[in-house]
Amino acid sequence: MEEAYITMPKGFRASGVSAGMKCSDPANINKDDPKSSYLDVALIVSDTPANVAGVYTSNLVKGHSLTRTIDIVNSGSKVRGIVINSKVANAGVGKVGVDDAELVASKIADKLGCDSKQIMTASTGVIGSRLPVDKITNVVPELVDSLSSDEESAHNSEYAMMTTDTVPKEVAATITMGDGKEVTIAAQAKGSGMIHPNLATMISVFTTDANISSDLIDKALHNAVKYTFNRVSVDGDTSVCDSVIVMANGASGASEITEGSEDYELFERALTKLSDDLARMIASDGEGASKFIEIEVTGAADEYDAKLIVTSVARSPLVKTAMFGEDANIGRVLTAVGYSGAKFDPNKVDILVGGMLFFHDGVCVDFDEEEAAKILACHDILIQIVLSEGEAHDRMFTCDFTYDYVKINGSYRT
Amino acid sequence: MEEAYITMPKGFRASGVSAGMKCSDPANINKDDPKSSYLDVALIVSDTPANVAGVYTSNLVKGHSLTRTIDIVNSGSKVRGIVINSKVANAGVGKVGVDDAELVASKIADKLGCDSKQIMTASTGVIGSRLPVDKITNVVPELVDSLSSDEESAHNSEYAMMTTDTVPKEVAATITMGDGKEVTIAAQAKGSGMIHPNLATMISVFTTDANISSDLIDKALHNAVKYTFNRVSVDGDTSVCDSVIVMANGASGASEITEGSEDYELFERALTKLSDDLARMIASDGEGASKFIEIEVTGAADEYDAKLIVTSVARSPLVKTAMFGEDANIGRVLTAVGYSGAKFDPNKVDILVGGMLFFHDGVCVDFDEEEAAKILACHDILIQIVLSEGEAHDRMFTCDFTYDYVKINGSYRT
Repeated sequence: MEEAYITMPKGFRASGVSAGMKCSDPANINKDDPKSSYLDVALIVSDTPANVAGVYTSNLVKGHSLTRTIDIVNSGSKVRGIVINSKVANAGVGKVGVDDAELVASKIADKLGCDSKQIMTASTGVIGSRLPVDKITNVVPELVDSLSSDEESAHNSEYAMMTTDTVPKEVAATITMGDGKEVTIAAQAKGSGMIHPNLATMISVFTTDANISSDLIDKALHNAVKYTFNRVSVDGDTSVCDSVIVMANGASGASEITEGSEDYELFERALTKLSDDLARMIASDGEGASKFIEIEVTGAADEYDAKLIVTSVARSPLVKTAMFGEDANIGRVLTAVGYSGAKFDPNKVDILVGGMLFFHDGVCVDFDEEEAAKILACHDILIQIVLSEGEAHDRMFTCDFTYDYVKINGSYRT
Repeated sequence: MEEAYITMPKGFRASGVSAGMKCSDPANINKDDPKSSYLDVALIVSDTPANVAGVYTSNLVKGHSLTRTIDIVNSGSKVRGIVINSKVANAGVGKVGVDDAELVASKIADKLGCDSKQIMTASTGVIGSRLPVDKITNVVPELVDSLSSDEESAHNSEYAMMTTDTVPKEVAATITMGDGKEVTIAAQAKGSGMIHPNLATMISVFTTDANISSDLIDKALHNAVKYTFNRVSVDGDTSVCDSVIVMANGASGASEITEGSEDYELFERALTKLSDDLARMIASDGEGASKFIEIEVTGAADEYDAKLIVTSVARSPLVKTAMFGEDANIGRVLTAVGYSGAKFDPNKVDILVGGMLFFHDGVCVDFDEEEAAKILACHDILIQIVLSEGEAHDRMFTCDFTYDYVKINGSYRT
C-alpha cells in the first residue's frame, strides 16, 4: 500500500503528543521506542468548519467522550476537529466523565479560537478510571502548537491513538470528480481487542476535502461500514467507545456532491474501499493475532442466516485456535455453522479452506494432509462455506486465537 | 464429595476397555498412566430393560452415533444400555457413520442377547473421521465380559469417556421414597471443550433403580438440565455430540413414581442437584481452566434478558482472560452486559465480584486493590450483576481462558 496519512486532504492538520498516560514519566521516554508506546493524545482539525457524520458502537453502555461526540454530530452543526486519547476509555465513571471530556475540548477550543461544541472527543483504554484531565490539559498548548499538515505530525496523531495495535493503520485515496477536480479521502484507525460487528474498541477518523453535506456523508458512511467495519470480529466483544467519524471540509474546491450523482457513487465507493482496507488491517492486527482469516458464506437462505453463519464461525474459539495451531480440524467450522442458528440442510454443505475442499455435502472428504498443511501455514486464510439454500452471501474478517491474546488480555489493566 | 459411581443403583453394570484409539499400540500402554489416557470404549448396561429419556445438542449438525440414539429414545422402547467411545466423534462422515454405530451396537447386543435397538450409542472426539469399527468390535467380547457392578469397573467406564477432561466426574444420591424404599441415582459425565448452553461435547449418563416411566423421566430431566447443564459455557462452542441420557430400571423395588406425587418432587430435586454438581465440575474442568466462574444476574426485566446477560458475560474472552490474569478489569463485565442485547438502564447497574462492589449505579467505585487481588486469587469466582429492571434472574457457569486452552485447542486433532 502506498504512503497514506490523515492530512493528505487539503485543509487538515494533525498532531500527537505525550501527556504521560502511557508513560508516566516523560523523562523516561526512550526516543528509540515506537512512538505508539508514549504518544497518547491526538488532535485532528480542519482549518475551516467541516461537515460531519459518524457511526458508533451498538453497546448500550457508551463511553462519556463518545456520548458527547454523538450529541455534537446529531446537532447538525459543523465541527473543527476531534481530540482522541488512548490509555483511559473515560467510560463507567458517571457524569464526571462528560465534564472531563467537555473540559478537554474547551481548552482546545479556546486555543483554536472556536466553540467547544466544535471539538469532538474520543477515548480508548481502561473502563472505570477517570480521565487524567490535568495531564491532558497541560499538553493542550503543545498539542495545538504542533498541529501541522506534514506527514510526521499526521503519523504522530495515529501513534497517539494506538493501544495494543502493533502497526499503524492509515489509508488514503484520491478520486477525480465530474468537474475534473481531485478530491482526497484519508483515514486512520486503531483496533485490536474488544472487536466485534457493530464496532468495537475501534476508533477511526476519516478526513476529506470533498464538498458534501453531512446528510450525504452519513448515507455513504452507513453503506461503507456495512460489510467492512461491521464485519470485523477479533474476540466477540463490542466495546463501549467505538466510533467512525468522517469530517468533510470542501477544501478541494470541487463542486458539491449531490445525491444520486456519479460523483456520489465515486465517493461512496472510495469510502467503502478505504473502510474495507482498514477493516482487514484491524482483523489482521487483532490482539495477539498471527493470522488473518476471512470467512465467506454463499448460498444461504437469506441475509439474516448468512450473517448468523459468518458471525458464528468468526467467533468460535475452537476454529480460531485450530487456525493458530495450523490444525486441519475443519469439523469445527461445520460445528460452528451448525450452532449458528441459521437454517440449512447439513447434508448439503461444502467447506473450503484456501480453495481446498474439506467437506462435501456435509461429509469430510479425503484430503491431502501435506497440501492442507501448506494452506494452513499461510498468513491469510480464506474459509468458504457453500450452502444450497438460496442466493444470500456474507463475509467476515477475523484473526486466530493465540497465546499472546491471553497474555495481552490477562493483564491489560495493570 | 463422597465416593460415587455409575453402578451404585441396583441392577447396573459397567466396563471400560482400550480399543487402541487413544493409544494405538496396546503394548505401549503404561499402566502407571491415568486410565483416561488409554481406555476409550465404555459400556453401561441394565440387567433388565430400562425406561429412558434424553436431552441432546441443539446443533443442527448432529453426530451419527447420537442421531441413532435419539431415534431409539424417541421410539419409546426400553433399552438395555449405552456404548460410548472417545477419540472419534463419528460425525460429518455421512450415512456410513450411522452404519458404523449400528454395527458396534449389534455386536454388543449379540453378546448380551438383546436387540441392537436396545443398545444406544454415543461418540466424542474429532469430527470428520470414520469410527475405527474393527478396533471397537475386536474388544466387544472383553467389554461385555468385564461388565461388573463393582466400583473399579464403573470408574473404568468413566475414564473411557474422557477426552481432555483432567478429572473424572461422577456423582450419586440416595433418596427415600414414600413407601420407605431407597432409590439411588448415579451419573457420570465427560466435558471439557466445545461447551455452551444447550449442551456441548458433553456426554452424561444417569442410571437409577427408581421405578419411573420414560415420560416422567423426560419431564424431570428437562427441568433438571434447564439451569444446570444448559448453563455451562466453556467456550461458546456447542458440539454435535452432546447428550444427557437417563436409564431407570426399577430394580430398587420401590413403588412407581407418579406425576404430581411427593416422590416425583424428590426425584426431580435429586436429579437437578446431581445435574448441578456435574455442571459445576464440567465448567471447573473446562479446557485449560484454572478457575471456576459463576455469573449471576438479578433484577433483569424478564427471563429472556437475564439469559442474554449471563450468556454474554460467560462468553466474553475479555472477561475470561481478565479472570485468568487476576486483573480487576471489571469494566469488561459492564461492557459484556452492555452488548448482550438485553434492555436495561446502564446507570442502574451494580457489579460485585466475590461479594465486593466494583460498580455502583454504572460507575466504578473506589475499591481496595489489595482486597480485590485476594478475591481474584480464589479458584471460585462469583460475578454478580444487579439490575433494577424487574424480578428476573439467571446464572451461568464458566471458567477462565488460559494459555492452556489455546495450547489444547491449537493441536487437538493431531
